[in-house]
Amino acid sequence: MTTNLNSAMKFAHENYQKFISELCDFLRIKTVSTDSVYAKDMVVGAQWLINYLNSLGADDSRILKTQKHPVVYGNLSKASKDKPTILVYGHYDVQPADPLEFWRSDPFEPTIKDNLLYARGSSDMKGQMMIALGAIKSIVATGSLPVNFKFMFEGEEEIGSPSIQTFLTEHKELFKSDFVLNLDAGMISKDKPTIVYGLRGLAYFEIFVTGPAQDLHSGLFGGVVYNPIQALSELIAGMINSDGVIQLPGFYDDVIPLSCEEKVALDKLGMDDKFYKVQTGVDHLFGEKGYSSTERIGARPTLDVNGIISGYVGEGPKTVIPSKAMAKLSMRLVPDQTPEKVKLQLIKYMEQKAPIQVKWEVKMLASDSASLTDMNFYATRCFAKSIQEIWGIPPVYQRGGGSIPIVSHMQKILGTESVLSGFSLPEDNIHSPNERLDLDVFKKGIDTTIHFLFSIADECER
Amino acid sequence: MTTNLNSAMKFAHENYQKFISELCDFLRIKTVSTDSVYAKDMVVGAQWLINYLNSLGADDSRILKTQKHPVVYGNLSKASKDKPTILVYGHYDVQPADPLEFWRSDPFEPTIKDNLLYARGSSDMKGQMMIALGAIKSIVATGSLPVNFKFMFEGEEEIGSPSIQTFLTEHKELFKSDFVLNLDAGMISKDKPTIVYGLRGLAYFEIFVTGPAQDLHSGLFGGVVYNPIQALSELIAGMINSDGVIQLPGFYDDVIPLSCEEKVALDKLGMDDKFYKVQTGVDHLFGEKGYSSTERIGARPTLDVNGIISGYVGEGPKTVIPSKAMAKLSMRLVPDQTPEKVKLQLIKYMEQKAPIQVKWEVKMLASDSASLTDMNFYATRCFAKSIQEIWGIPPVYQRGGGSIPIVSHMQKILGTESVLSGFSLPEDNIHSPNERLDLDVFKKGIDTTIHFLFSIADECER
Repeated sequence: MTTNLNSAMKFAHENYQKFISELCDFLRIKTVSTDSVYAKDMVVGAQWLINYLNSLGADDSRILKTQKHPVVYGNLSKASKDKPTILVYGHYDVQPADPLEFWRSDPFEPTIKDNLLYARGSSDMKGQMMIALGAIKSIVATGSLPVNFKFMFEGEEEIGSPSIQTFLTEHKELFKSDFVLNLDAGMISKDKPTIVYGLRGLAYFEIFVTGPAQDLHSGLFGGVVYNPIQALSELIAGMINSDGVIQLPGFYDDVIPLSCEEKVALDKLGMDDKFYKVQTGVDHLFGEKGYSSTERIGARPTLDVNGIISGYVGEGPKTVIPSKAMAKLSMRLVPDQTPEKVKLQLIKYMEQKAPIQVKWEVKMLASDSASLTDMNFYATRCFAKSIQEIWGIPPVYQRGGGSIPIVSHMQKILGTESVLSGFSLPEDNIHSPNERLDLDVFKKGIDTTIHFLFSIADECER
Repeated sequence: MTTNLNSAMKFAHENYQKFISELCDFLRIKTVSTDSVYAKDMVVGAQWLINYLNSLGADDSRILKTQKHPVVYGNLSKASKDKPTILVYGHYDVQPADPLEFWRSDPFEPTIKDNLLYARGSSDMKGQMMIALGAIKSIVATGSLPVNFKFMFEGEEEIGSPSIQTFLTEHKELFKSDFVLNLDAGMISKDKPTIVYGLRGLAYFEIFVTGPAQDLHSGLFGGVVYNPIQALSELIAGMINSDGVIQLPGFYDDVIPLSCEEKVALDKLGMDDKFYKVQTGVDHLFGEKGYSSTERIGARPTLDVNGIISGYVGEGPKTVIPSKAMAKLSMRLVPDQTPEKVKLQLIKYMEQKAPIQVKWEVKMLASDSASLTDMNFYATRCFAKSIQEIWGIPPVYQRGGGSIPIVSHMQKILGTESVLSGFSLPEDNIHSPNERLDLDVFKKGIDTTIHFLFSIADECER
């Protein structure tokens, strides 16, 4: 292995600039999945990946249709049949770039400053995909591949992967593999490479509240109608109490309590209150009483309003009582909560609390169950060893706060376990303005992945 | 008087179409005062009025600068010096047209359907200004004017007239008159011509709440920060209790209680709950406990959130914890509340209630004190007689819910009383999509005004 590994590493080191430049091409494609304005760009993004896979020598690369955005499939089986097949997962869709006014450079024109690459998707996760693709390219360019690959790049991750369950069920055979390599989870800090073994689920809703039949003049009608912003505010206010406890009826019924062992493991991550204050720029944190910040993020469910709009929000005053108000809100779920039950809890809450004077509606936009993976899975242990080799330290093990729906779907539908890691940082502003990728970490990510691909082949030989 | 009156009436009846067509020209000018995008249109609107006044034979018409939007001045003193000088007040600015998606026709391309003229400003108040201008034109075209006129058309009424106090103080002499004719108050229904003797004041604010330093990913950070939408919702929710009572400290301290006599007068308006349900399209009204709808609107202070925005409000889900949230809210005030005191009450409320985890700021955008005018003022009595003559019924007397800042400024700064009436209807959707003007009422308004101009001249002769 050593010769091949060294040649591939050498190639990678000599071609980082080329990988970055290829990544920049990929980042220029506006693959925003949530907004139908970008539907064509999504197809351009998928085609870009097909071309890239073909350049690696993949066979049978193609775009597979779903209800919404297509999935890119590829097969690169050049190693012998007794070598493992790794399913490389990625998502080529990105979050919307807004609020645009806070970006210091064009979100779709990648800009490098201080070795940080700024662009929407640079970190989440086009940069992560390029780490896997760059690692494979380095091996292909300098020798033969030690393992086989399949590829699945979806286009709906940022909207909660609505098509993926049906899709996986339909293409179960096509995506058969020994395990999944998923680099969509981040590191907890630049000096702490991370393996994620638990993820929260998600239940995402829109709530609409309607008062009067049309917008009204607040002078002529102020005092006779229930203002829908008032009603919506009251409903939101009542969802969390002053101890940070969520008030939806039965919300905590299915939550599995943290074990002592897990509390100790989470504590080891070293993500204390000071860490979170620096990351978020606040003087005072807030969350569910009785739990540490790390516990709240990784192992406790939360509720956040993600957006709200109603009435006049332009310049100057306008004395209107709006007819409608809308909020987007989502809950992060932990085992054994389910999005379906949480939806019923939200509807029950609305039934109990919404004032009689307004009408309301609840729409579910996205859902995903929480998942836990096996920390002792052989490929995960192997990835940990490659981290140790390249970074000089062992990885930390985290229960992540975010949701990566595909992980639980892979488990449930394909029966395939995932190695879940990644090389984005908390300060990379993913989902926010000025998203960026740390190019030092990017390079180390490619090295780690090259190392892993050779060592997993060795592992399976023994 | 009768010959002149009849000729003017005849001219008006023969020229209504022309007046409507002139009004349409005026309505096409996008004089939205609150948004600086329309600054040039404001000047075009002012110039249109200058041309119109000149066509009536006005001398010395000119555009007078203010801090923001100009005031149009005109002088039409063709009657003898012993005849009264009437200051015709109007405002040529209009509310923003949004939300545009609810308009059934272009808000700035007037459209007539079923004898209703749809356009932003048709009712509030370009149509009302055209009533006064059309009445004067009818008299000018058929004989000599029985009274003298001055004109003041402001461009900041819809943003709370921020420049008007300084402006009036500076031009006190120029706007000297016997009384003001102000047709910016509406009728309570199509068969109830109305004279308004009381108006509510206004205090309009923007509240900003800031949580984390930048937008955050709700998966990575949900559970450690106070969501600013949550905080803002809690603050709004706490401002009004379930009895509709406003919770700002000391808010009702200066409110003058309703006398029994006034309660009876307000009751006579016949604006019962059924009326308000039809007007607003709701099944259940809401407001301060212990007061009728008419009392709440005319004689009790209210608080309404006029707009709110934060986070992601586009299509689909985005799992963001926003950094900032903003709400616009305003209170309608009654004697003897003052906007300055209310501002302090709001700040005190924020100090007491805002959670320590967020930062906040309160900005005042507009303010106006409440006003009461003399129901027995000679010109008001005379206008009531003209209403009786043209409509066949006496007017009702109302304390209006809206604010017309200029009325109290005219009283305080110029020492001039206003005749406050108008010919817009509650169903005219002022400040809302599909604003309209009832052309039957428009015609009767011109007749009423012609009658009034002759009879006030007669009155002053006796």
